Amino acid sequence: MPEAGAPEPIARLVQEFSKLPGIGPKSAQRLAYHVLRAPEDDARALARALADVKERIVFCGTCFNITERDPCGLCESDNRDRTLVCVVEQPLDVLVVERTGGFRGLYHVLHGALNPIDGVGPEQLRIQELLGRVEAGDVAEVIMATNPSLEGEATSMYVQRLLQPLGVRVTRLARGLPSGADLEYMDDLTLSRALEGRQEL
Amino acid sequence: MPEAGAPEPIARLVQEFSKLPGIGPKSAQRLAYHVLRAPEDDARALARALADVKERIVFCGTCFNITERDPCGLCESDNRDRTLVCVVEQPLDVLVVERTGGFRGLYHVLHGALNPIDGVGPEQLRIQELLGRVEAGDVAEVIMATNPSLEGEATSMYVQRLLQPLGVRVTRLARGLPSGADLEYMDDLTLSRALEGRQEL
Repeated sequence: MPEAGAPEPIARLVQEFSKLPGIGPKSAQRLAYHVLRAPEDDARALARALADVKERIVFCGTCFNITERDPCGLCESDNRDRTLVCVVEQPLDVLVVERTGGFRGLYHVLHGALNPIDGVGPEQLRIQELLGRVEAGDVAEVIMATNPSLEGEATSMYVQRLLQPLGVRVTRLARGLPSGADLEYMDDLTLSRALEGRQEL
Repeated sequence: MPEAGAPEPIARLVQEFSKLPGIGPKSAQRLAYHVLRAPEDDARALARALADVKERIVFCGTCFNITERDPCGLCESDNRDRTLVCVVEQPLDVLVVERTGGFRGLYHVLHGALNPIDGVGPEQLRIQELLGRVEAGDVAEVIMATNPSLEGEATSMYVQRLLQPLGVRVTRLARGLPSGADLEYMDDLTLSRALEGRQEL
């Protein structure tokens, strides 16, 4: 320990915190000193939660969503429409779609989107496994719910091309104005998509 | 696990992250899902760093700064001026003053500032221990380096009144304009303090 610096355990905690996304060196320092002041049980609970996530979470062998047991609760459920599969990029997206309460089908998590610059090609995503599910029958419609970003759109197009020969219906989430938006502040692309997809009143 | 919710370990990690200051529910969720994707070693390192901070950090019995061994490196050093004691609110403040490289004395960490609303009275702070250090001799000057806030100022005044009878010199950090500031955007209090403390050019 340098005479004037922070004790090694604190410096290390600052370093570990600053590896997290959106946490800069200043925030990391504030968090580390907060942990120091906070009750020991709080630090212990966070440490255990970190370990548990890594030890107890696995991927469902069917939909590749995160779960504590494989197959996951969604894939095993009798209350879901097995002819509908919603394809998302990340496990968090499953939660977001579930929260709407408007979807009663199954999911398929790709674990990313095509991104050649970051070295993410089709073989890094769970695309083969999706084709396998569709080939096995049952699935009547695949809803592409990737992000409306360059990478997400490219992934949708790529997957759609592979699914087409299998005779399954492939749809994607509607593009348009988000609720509560202000026309004045909408970007051109969103606005042109909303125009293209205009609906009868 | 509810069929549609996040698996329990993830939900718990989200909950633990959101207990940290400045981390809302959305950020906590983002952090938890990041941990899930990140290498297992990263999660393990953060968990261990959390535990280590709680297990290996103690307070120095003299200055009450955080340290791995008591007395701390600063109190034990032969290169520091033992007649000068800089009083700060928090351990992090020691680091901040050390970083200037302009102070070669010792420190005393109060672990807070007087704050009647939050129930912080003199007995919650390391004030008696400071008086004990001054009474033991050696100390010629105490520099009050509490925050320039209501609570910090009140704490300084309170400590200064207790130190006065002991015949020690008590000073505080200068008040004035911060470097690089713009007069136009300075608050009235800072500006009046800078006027009061004006210096010969």
